[in-house]
Amino acid sequence: MNYEFLPSVAAPLARVIQEFHKLPGIGPKSAQRLAYYLIRMPAEEAQSLAEAILAVKERVTFCNICQNITENSPCYLCSHESRDRSRICVVEEPMDVLSLERTQAYKGLYHVLHGVISPASGIGPENLKIRELLERLKGNDVQEIILATNPSLEGESTAMYVHRLLSPLVSHITRLARGLPVGSDLEYADEVTLSRALEGRQEV
Amino acid sequence: MNYEFLPSVAAPLARVIQEFHKLPGIGPKSAQRLAYYLIRMPAEEAQSLAEAILAVKERVTFCNICQNITENSPCYLCSHESRDRSRICVVEEPMDVLSLERTQAYKGLYHVLHGVISPASGIGPENLKIRELLERLKGNDVQEIILATNPSLEGESTAMYVHRLLSPLVSHITRLARGLPVGSDLEYADEVTLSRALEGRQEV
Repeated sequence: MNYEFLPSVAAPLARVIQEFHKLPGIGPKSAQRLAYYLIRMPAEEAQSLAEAILAVKERVTFCNICQNITENSPCYLCSHESRDRSRICVVEEPMDVLSLERTQAYKGLYHVLHGVISPASGIGPENLKIRELLERLKGNDVQEIILATNPSLEGESTAMYVHRLLSPLVSHITRLARGLPVGSDLEYADEVTLSRALEGRQEV
Repeated sequence: MNYEFLPSVAAPLARVIQEFHKLPGIGPKSAQRLAYYLIRMPAEEAQSLAEAILAVKERVTFCNICQNITENSPCYLCSHESRDRSRICVVEEPMDVLSLERTQAYKGLYHVLHGVISPASGIGPENLKIRELLERLKGNDVQEIILATNPSLEGESTAMYVHRLLSPLVSHITRLARGLPVGSDLEYADEVTLSRALEGRQEV
């Protein structure tokens, strides 16, 4: 839908609808709803939203150690004294760090690859932060690398690639367990997940 | 999810996630995805989005005739010479004007109520732009009022209320036809729609 050519739509409104529509997961109807919502919003709230958007671009940068997003480099996690420096958990995206931190089950460091190897999209290992990971291992006593890329085709092949690269350098390279999600039902599990759950079965 | 208390999340990021989460139809996960998308967006695009949001608040106002949103009052539609001034189509929201304009089947004027009567939400007739509609009818030769509120419970009762109020003033008061949506299937139509389609049947 092109609103520019509908003269009954005020130009600034047409523009904001198109800007919202560019964002991921926001279709033309949602963009329209957001734009109309904006009109009824108090001016301070709209101001606050616009400022927050600009602040992210101005103040957020990447940690020069773990490549995660941060306000100050090195980031909070890399510079925190209580974290276990002998473990690095390798993830695809900054969001994954957030998910893992929420579990409160991991006290080591992270490394964000910023993507996966995907020949179909023209993304090779050189486009990921793999070189930075190799640099980190030099001179640091890292005991374990946890490969926490997604259990998808691309996540798995990226994990395999990183594993091959790091196996001469680190003694323990592990992968997150694949199995039945907690609270799920055996009846509805797919065969691949179920066979992985069998393979990875543990002594009670 | 409160990101403020997760120190591993950069503060500006936590803030923009919360700002996005306030918007309608954007849950915590979508807000998070949008925020991370923002980080990878070119700075100019983020700037453009922020400016578009501010421009809507600064430059969009309401037409003092039809109450629709506009940059200049009276709006494009109210001031356009080719529009039929003897017809006014009464709608709930500015978005409805857009939907009707897209049909290119209506050449009259509009009146936006900015809501529906909803006792449950504490919205009475005095909260809508009904007084402004009555004012418009004074001194203007309006032949037809088309009640185009939604075919929902609240839309119907608002239409009935407006109908009662205007019937002494305007000769023709019509309501949009209720019936089967074009391209739909009789088998899947609900009974109410089907009985309305029967009631409103027309000579071929």
